Amino acid sequence: MRQGTFVLPPRCADLVGVIDAELARFLREQRESLAGSVNGLVIVFDELDRVLASGGKRLRPLFCCLGHLAAGGRETRELIRAASALELLHTFAIVHDDVMDRSPTRRGATASWLHLSEEHRRAGFLGDAAGFGTSAAILVGDLALVLADDGLRSSGFRANVLLPALHRYDRMRAEVVSGQFLDVFAAHRGKAGEEEARLIAGRKSGGYTVEGPLHIGAMLAGGSDDLLRCLSAYGVPLGEAFQIRDDVLGVFGDPEETGKDRDSDLREGKRTVLLAKAMAASGPEERAFLEARVGRPDLRAGELQRMRAIIEGSGALAATLELVGDLALRAKLALDPAVMPPDIADLLSEMVDLLVTRRT
Amino acid sequence: MRQGTFVLPPRCADLVGVIDAELARFLREQRESLAGSVNGLVIVFDELDRVLASGGKRLRPLFCCLGHLAAGGRETRELIRAASALELLHTFAIVHDDVMDRSPTRRGATASWLHLSEEHRRAGFLGDAAGFGTSAAILVGDLALVLADDGLRSSGFRANVLLPALHRYDRMRAEVVSGQFLDVFAAHRGKAGEEEARLIAGRKSGGYTVEGPLHIGAMLAGGSDDLLRCLSAYGVPLGEAFQIRDDVLGVFGDPEETGKDRDSDLREGKRTVLLAKAMAASGPEERAFLEARVGRPDLRAGELQRMRAIIEGSGALAATLELVGDLALRAKLALDPAVMPPDIADLLSEMVDLLVTRRT
Repeated sequence: MRQGTFVLPPRCADLVGVIDAELARFLREQRESLAGSVNGLVIVFDELDRVLASGGKRLRPLFCCLGHLAAGGRETRELIRAASALELLHTFAIVHDDVMDRSPTRRGATASWLHLSEEHRRAGFLGDAAGFGTSAAILVGDLALVLADDGLRSSGFRANVLLPALHRYDRMRAEVVSGQFLDVFAAHRGKAGEEEARLIAGRKSGGYTVEGPLHIGAMLAGGSDDLLRCLSAYGVPLGEAFQIRDDVLGVFGDPEETGKDRDSDLREGKRTVLLAKAMAASGPEERAFLEARVGRPDLRAGELQRMRAIIEGSGALAATLELVGDLALRAKLALDPAVMPPDIADLLSEMVDLLVTRRT
Repeated sequence: MRQGTFVLPPRCADLVGVIDAELARFLREQRESLAGSVNGLVIVFDELDRVLASGGKRLRPLFCCLGHLAAGGRETRELIRAASALELLHTFAIVHDDVMDRSPTRRGATASWLHLSEEHRRAGFLGDAAGFGTSAAILVGDLALVLADDGLRSSGFRANVLLPALHRYDRMRAEVVSGQFLDVFAAHRGKAGEEEARLIAGRKSGGYTVEGPLHIGAMLAGGSDDLLRCLSAYGVPLGEAFQIRDDVLGVFGDPEETGKDRDSDLREGKRTVLLAKAMAASGPEERAFLEARVGRPDLRAGELQRMRAIIEGSGALAATLELVGDLALRAKLALDPAVMPPDIADLLSEMVDLLVTRRT
């Protein structure tokens, strides 16, 4: 897995190893049962394998495990199955996201819609290769979502903890999808202020990256309401900090480290906190320059360079990084050693530092 | 609702009325909880309402109810909630299907991806209207899928019947998505024989239109294995007959009655049983004419007319309708009055006649 500067605490790295093994096992089993003798379906499973092998930090499964351990649960086979399912939910989200954004790369590899259209050409299929790539990627995402639900439901937990966790999972999924829509909507409508950009960051990523997985893991161990409240007080600001950091990396990150190009957020007109702050803090001339260019797919290198200079020069970059730091501090202060084992509180605290200083 | 020649038995028509009321209630509740004060999300819920209001026969909820009644269950509020969820699953399938096929109409109304791109233009949004329509329709479909699961899970049934039904539901969803992929794959690879076309018809529609919903309904009432076997023996051939009838209507139907244009299946190169039979039964010249044209988006009216004449003249249309009739007979003969109340067996028998003679 590409990790770059992102080095997990040893206990978390061990969990990721077990999660990856379970993901491989689960997908092999599903491939046999669904694709078995059916010509064609192997393309879908090969693509799921390729996306998972291309990298990713396995953050959602990891937070699910940490939530479970925080609630006094143990690292069982059932937990690893349930946690792995959340990586398939993330796979659904990124595959559909790339279809919608037409992003050519993800995790340093070709995005699904583009890879599948290249497969179409390689195989000499009939009809429109781009159309095939898009359709096939929509279905790869749909299947990842369906398999995620299946994995969580069939994880082996008993109904008294499984059903409340499924309820929480449903709410989380609805928030991810609605957050994605708000993101698309804001890019096309233009002019999102900082408040709206923060709402989108919270819905789109905050919920399903940190708080949701923590809650699901904790609920699968019958975690108390006090623990769930503590995990929210930690997870909500950390999820937001994670997404805002992501938006900063999307404009100022090193493509070698992030695995995605750093022009597409500006070309797509993604309405981020960073951009909202830059609009608010720039002088009239700079603001007009930004407003006229954000969201134009044909931006040239010189324009992109000037846009970055304006965002940095306005103080927006520094203010955004400061906001990320504030949110990280809030997350750490929320960790209450009275409601969880101290070693888990320590791990959660380490995760904050990792997530908000990451360069990948 | 548009019904054309499709007139349900009174008891089924009553069920559809209750299901529609529940769908409206459920979507109103979800709109309040997710879209509430959030500007933008209303677009997604308005679109779900529009698609549901544009028609549809509510077959999946109906078969879910009939399966439940066949197992001795009663027409409770819980049943109606669970059954309605299956219409949202179907909504997911058709919205994504239209994105993939670029079909302009559905149920006589504008398809979601096209309608949403028109909304983009009307509202004077920024950027590419077609891109917005596609992205927004993908997310409308995703949300319909997520809400379907939520509706079934929260229907109010107890864990001992709910969990087995959710297991069956997961299998059904994976089959729908994989069937859709096989459909896309076969159209791009070309040359699907009758056996493969029947496999696709079975996966894509057979499973989730009749057998799956019947099983889910029956399992929610704790139906016996004998009953489930009987419902499979009825549902599998009927589901296949339904899909093959659909493929016939897709080429020979009256657009005024079907609500969709009858050229797109030929233009997309959809690999149907009808087409496979025509390829096998035509002389070399006619077969070459068909093979050179199926799947070409630019087919002219004269070519389409000749293709229809070849399919009909080869005897493929008559043979396909005969196959539909055979499958319908098999479905009826499978109805075993020893395992279900006789009035429900009668209703299931009436449904066979309706589905295989429908013109809409």
